[in-house]
Amino acid sequence: MRFHTRKWVKPEDLNPNGTLFGGRLLEWIDEEAALYAIIQLENPKTVTKYMSEIDFRSSARQGDIIEIGMDVVTFGRASLTLTCEVRNKMTRESIIVVDRIVMVSLDEEGKAKPHGKTRIEYVKDRLGD
Amino acid sequence: MRFHTRKWVKPEDLNPNGTLFGGRLLEWIDEEAALYAIIQLENPKTVTKYMSEIDFRSSARQGDIIEIGMDVVTFGRASLTLTCEVRNKMTRESIIVVDRIVMVSLDEEGKAKPHGKTRIEYVKDRLGD
Amino acid sequence: MRFHTRKWVKPEDLNPNGTLFGGRLLEWIDEEAALYAIIQLENPKTVTKYMSEIDFRSSARQGDIIEIGMDVVTFGRASLTLTCEVRNKMTRESIIVVDRIVMVSLDEEGKAKPHGKTRIEYVKDRLGD
Amino acid sequence: MRFHTRKWVKPEDLNPNGTLFGGRLLEWIDEEAALYAIIQLENPKTVTKYMSEIDFRSSARQGDIIEIGMDVVTFGRASLTLTCEVRNKMTRESIIVVDRIVMVSLDEEGKAKPHGKTRIEYVKDRLGD
Amino acid sequence: MRFHTRKWVKPEDLNPNGTLFGGRLLEWIDEEAALYAIIQLENPKTVTKYMSEIDFRSSARQGDIIEIGMDVVTFGRASLTLTCEVRNKMTRESIIVVDRIVMVSLDEEGKAKPHGKTRIEYVKDRLGD
Amino acid sequence: MRFHTRKWVKPEDLNPNGTLFGGRLLEWIDEEAALYAIIQLENPKTVTKYMSEIDFRSSARQGDIIEIGMDVVTFGRASLTLTCEVRNKMTRESIIVVDRIVMVSLDEEGKAKPHGKTRIEYVKDRLGD
Repeated sequence: MRFHTRKWVKPEDLNPNGTLFGGRLLEWIDEEAALYAIIQLENPKTVTKYMSEIDFRSSARQGDIIEIGMDVVTFGRASLTLTCEVRNKMTRESIIVVDRIVMVSLDEEGKAKPHGKTRIEYVKDRLGD
Repeated sequence: MRFHTRKWVKPEDLNPNGTLFGGRLLEWIDEEAALYAIIQLENPKTVTKYMSEIDFRSSARQGDIIEIGMDVVTFGRASLTLTCEVRNKMTRESIIVVDRIVMVSLDEEGKAKPHGKTRIEYVKDRLGD
Repeated sequence: MRFHTRKWVKPEDLNPNGTLFGGRLLEWIDEEAALYAIIQLENPKTVTKYMSEIDFRSSARQGDIIEIGMDVVTFGRASLTLTCEVRNKMTRESIIVVDRIVMVSLDEEGKAKPHGKTRIEYVKDRLGD
Repeated sequence: MRFHTRKWVKPEDLNPNGTLFGGRLLEWIDEEAALYAIIQLENPKTVTKYMSEIDFRSSARQGDIIEIGMDVVTFGRASLTLTCEVRNKMTRESIIVVDRIVMVSLDEEGKAKPHGKTRIEYVKDRLGD
Repeated sequence: MRFHTRKWVKPEDLNPNGTLFGGRLLEWIDEEAALYAIIQLENPKTVTKYMSEIDFRSSARQGDIIEIGMDVVTFGRASLTLTCEVRNKMTRESIIVVDRIVMVSLDEEGKAKPHGKTRIEYVKDRLGD
Repeated sequence: MRFHTRKWVKPEDLNPNGTLFGGRLLEWIDEEAALYAIIQLENPKTVTKYMSEIDFRSSARQGDIIEIGMDVVTFGRASLTLTCEVRNKMTRESIIVVDRIVMVSLDEEGKAKPHGKTRIEYVKDRLGD
């Protein structure tokens, strides 16, 4: 699993008990899944269709730095199934795990659109770097 | 199921495709689950522990009004299991369903704390209205 | 008066003195009035035209849960006059009262448009549930 | 009346009809009234107690620049009554008018605290510039 | 230099160390530079092209009131060079200084567009007040 | 240079001209610099002291995915100098470049505090993975 995006837990991200608001964390995960899928499928019109059960393992506090990891489980015809873990950057303590997030590629009318992808690609290869 | 909180889908709630950003929706659900559990358990230190699988059935567009419904599945010793549905207020079309959201009541040290509740209570009864 | 929407007072909603920022509260009331009027008048192009005097009776603190109540005062030809109270969900203490909020239904050119409504309707009746 | 603070109307400030969200405007006015009163009364613990009726005269669109004007109506013993107008910076069209906003100076326990001020002061005079 | 816009430092503006988040301050400066340039150049399509070095002289704390000052350094053919200082409103302590901010006037295709301005103008003169 | 954090440009990130708001971009850069420095210096009380000139090379549009790169220029006694580039994830087009961002490690009283670091470290090495 690759961990790219990092967040710094600020006062605006806290729940009234002073720990990271779970809703904010879910928002960050959904954004990361969306952009990961868009990069892989090369279709900006890719949406979240399903998330498997979510296990809130530990929390984070103001000032913590967290990192969001994504990996591919499987490529479907019009879908991409991801797995996600968020952890504390400094201690590697696991904060949340989502086994499967299903993203679907859509066409202009909002219908499932085959993406033709079967494996992870890197932008540097596409660009011939 | 009772639907209380309503939201008006504004430009700041959209993903780049112009539909309701899934992350925002998850944020709204988590807040509603938290406050519903706090009202029932009468303990402000109540946190989200688990969400079962999430099915994104349909989306919402700018200007739509949605409502968030919660119901109790079961009272545990220190936990409360909720079920949630979000739907379009005007058409009643279902937008998202989460079968089980497990909220846990904590003590000052952050350990599970029995809440002593076994059924839904209404504030008006507590206050003797 | 019916109280639907609930809010959980989070750090991002506080003024520098650590109590609920009045501006945030007014924002919440305006959104609730707008969506309440849109539901009743069945016209998404409904805007706030006037608010009568606003009495800030008490404040709210981080972690409080508040609820926003709306009721209809009168149906005009193109307008709808609402009354609003926000109170603490747990204690029922009144936080703010606005006697009259005048919402106006507009047509495409932004001119007042008669809405033909004379009494409160429920979505469940419209849908024939 | 002096117009100090300016705002640039961005997508995040719009209602779903594409004009400036009234709730955002009220939030901006409340913040400006609070900071104006804090500057005058030299007490950071100054809160909004009352707003007289609010007349939404015209709206603003994305990209508009607005400016918020405040003036003192009267100094009370523990209060300060302000008057406010928001207008379009480029055309001077009036957007909203609030005749009276009553701000109250509080002590540590949250009780009204006499401020001893009787007229507008300028920071440059206090600092002896 | 004229100081117009004021901000009240709220919890949502803090970094995890409890002082004003530098990123928020830069956001405020960029907005102020944009609207100042739009007012002067009378072209809403004016963008930030360059900022000279930024010196963070002191910080601000929750509840502080800051004011943002802008002045014109020079009018170019399609550009406007501004200088900026942010200071504490009550103490006049300097918080941040940006010597030069270059704003560029664009045409519909996003190319530099001569603005024909050579000196600061006031809206009241344009409107013949 | 390593590119970690990614952002999806959403409607709430746009300026009124419909391109990425420069202020938002500066906010993202400042957050990334802060968390990068905190990870390296192992001191959460690390603040932005200086940014060298900022060159806005190109813009981004709604739906674009951008990535933020950081690299170390030099380790000072209490400071860390970073260099930053933001680019479009899909096309690698450069969006903004900041040659030097100086972060300073502080002690409890807010004074510069030597950090004892002289080279980039990886969390996996610290944890003995």
